[in-house]
Amino acid sequence: MDQTSFAERYGPWALIAGGSEGIGASFARALASRGLHVALLARNAEPLEATAASIRAAADVEVRTAAIDLTSPTLVADLEPLVEGIEIGLLVYNAGATHGARPLLDQPVEHALNLVALNCRGPVLLTHRFAPAMVTRGRGGIILMTSMSAACGSAYVAAYSATKAFDLVLAESLWIELGQSGVDVLAVVAGLTDTPAMRRSGLVMEGAGFVAMDPGDVVDEALAALPGGGPMLVVGEQNREMARAFWPQDRGEIVELMTGGAAGLYELPALPRPT
Amino acid sequence: MDQTSFAERYGPWALIAGGSEGIGASFARALASRGLHVALLARNAEPLEATAASIRAAADVEVRTAAIDLTSPTLVADLEPLVEGIEIGLLVYNAGATHGARPLLDQPVEHALNLVALNCRGPVLLTHRFAPAMVTRGRGGIILMTSMSAACGSAYVAAYSATKAFDLVLAESLWIELGQSGVDVLAVVAGLTDTPAMRRSGLVMEGAGFVAMDPGDVVDEALAALPGGGPMLVVGEQNREMARAFWPQDRGEIVELMTGGAAGLYELPALPRPT
Repeated sequence: MDQTSFAERYGPWALIAGGSEGIGASFARALASRGLHVALLARNAEPLEATAASIRAAADVEVRTAAIDLTSPTLVADLEPLVEGIEIGLLVYNAGATHGARPLLDQPVEHALNLVALNCRGPVLLTHRFAPAMVTRGRGGIILMTSMSAACGSAYVAAYSATKAFDLVLAESLWIELGQSGVDVLAVVAGLTDTPAMRRSGLVMEGAGFVAMDPGDVVDEALAALPGGGPMLVVGEQNREMARAFWPQDRGEIVELMTGGAAGLYELPALPRPT
Repeated sequence: MDQTSFAERYGPWALIAGGSEGIGASFARALASRGLHVALLARNAEPLEATAASIRAAADVEVRTAAIDLTSPTLVADLEPLVEGIEIGLLVYNAGATHGARPLLDQPVEHALNLVALNCRGPVLLTHRFAPAMVTRGRGGIILMTSMSAACGSAYVAAYSATKAFDLVLAESLWIELGQSGVDVLAVVAGLTDTPAMRRSGLVMEGAGFVAMDPGDVVDEALAALPGGGPMLVVGEQNREMARAFWPQDRGEIVELMTGGAAGLYELPALPRPT
């Protein structure tokens, strides 16, 4: 898809939740280079403003920012000033991976509840806030970042894995529901990626024989796949190899199959996979 | 496992969240018949008391009840009177499936947030509340009810499916974390089951060619599998056949594999699958 077509389909503005650094900042830069204005929100103002400044210097687009915590009880109200008067054609939900790694019971319960707010409540709220206008326009996109951790449980990252499984399945459902209206939804399954948040989480980047991906490569693959490539994209060849064992079926096919089942049980129309 | 061994391993009390009817009530009856005292909580007092009365009439065990909404912001405090002075050896989390079936955007966002509270926040809170004492005792069990809907997204049940994926993965993580201390954790994947909640949800029980399972059969399979059968049990032969396509790998093996990966990345001990 050339730059003009991309901007017409997903512009004029992209909203990037978790847009200050790592994969989110890479999304912002890549989208700006494709001619989209970008509205960035993240918890900490300083890296957010640095990213915004570098985008303003590199691309002739507008950049807005707001220091907002995605776990805020008033999240939707908090971000209204950021999006006032602009049309969001693309929503990227890329929450930080500052989860650390400890057994669930060794952490205060607030740690797990915070991940539920960040990775479950947040995507639901932002989808509900921004998808209806996309459906009305008959175009737009939603990218929910998820993880190889979504494939199954794992010690040390119980709550994180569970919330990422939530994101994967939520995005797949939205892919078929919103796809009927021309809105593209993509679950992006990232593996080990070399981001500031991952490093802060105490992770040994060279551990366990994985090769960490560059955030820019994750974003390039994601944006290439967004038009027509959903519901699930596993980024990186190493991850795809592992993912073929976890998720051997074509995800679009089984989402369509499950939708047919739900339609039958509730006497609702079966929906075709989006084209 | 004979009745005495079962009660010694998972008694003296079972706490059943969502214990008034359907699968939860079947759990309560089955556990009482195995000699466990049962503490039942559910939102509506009337069916809860009816179930409690029938158990008291049928089995020589103590039965406690509390009308509590699992989505309550003060859930843990709400249930303290119910569990005061008793030892919970088994936690069954069986939230109602009164989700209906409509596209996500056609429902108020509160509907999806309520499912997040019910199926994500609730299991996290109750696990954190009751698992530590089980770990200290070196015995006990946790059953989280999940669904075939956890396998992938589906139109009409977006939030429900996502929360059930959360429950599956959460239980799997807890299976390996708590299993090290002799606590058995099991994700029970139910397919179509003939329960009052499912009928209330507007579902056509004969739709889509599925044969609904009896709640009692679901419970019999779950309790038979609890000792050593985790992390995931798909109940019913029809469901198992479908599940083999969705989840072709041995779940315990991949949970162990992912745990090894997390251990490597965070320089933590790898954990063996519980025996």
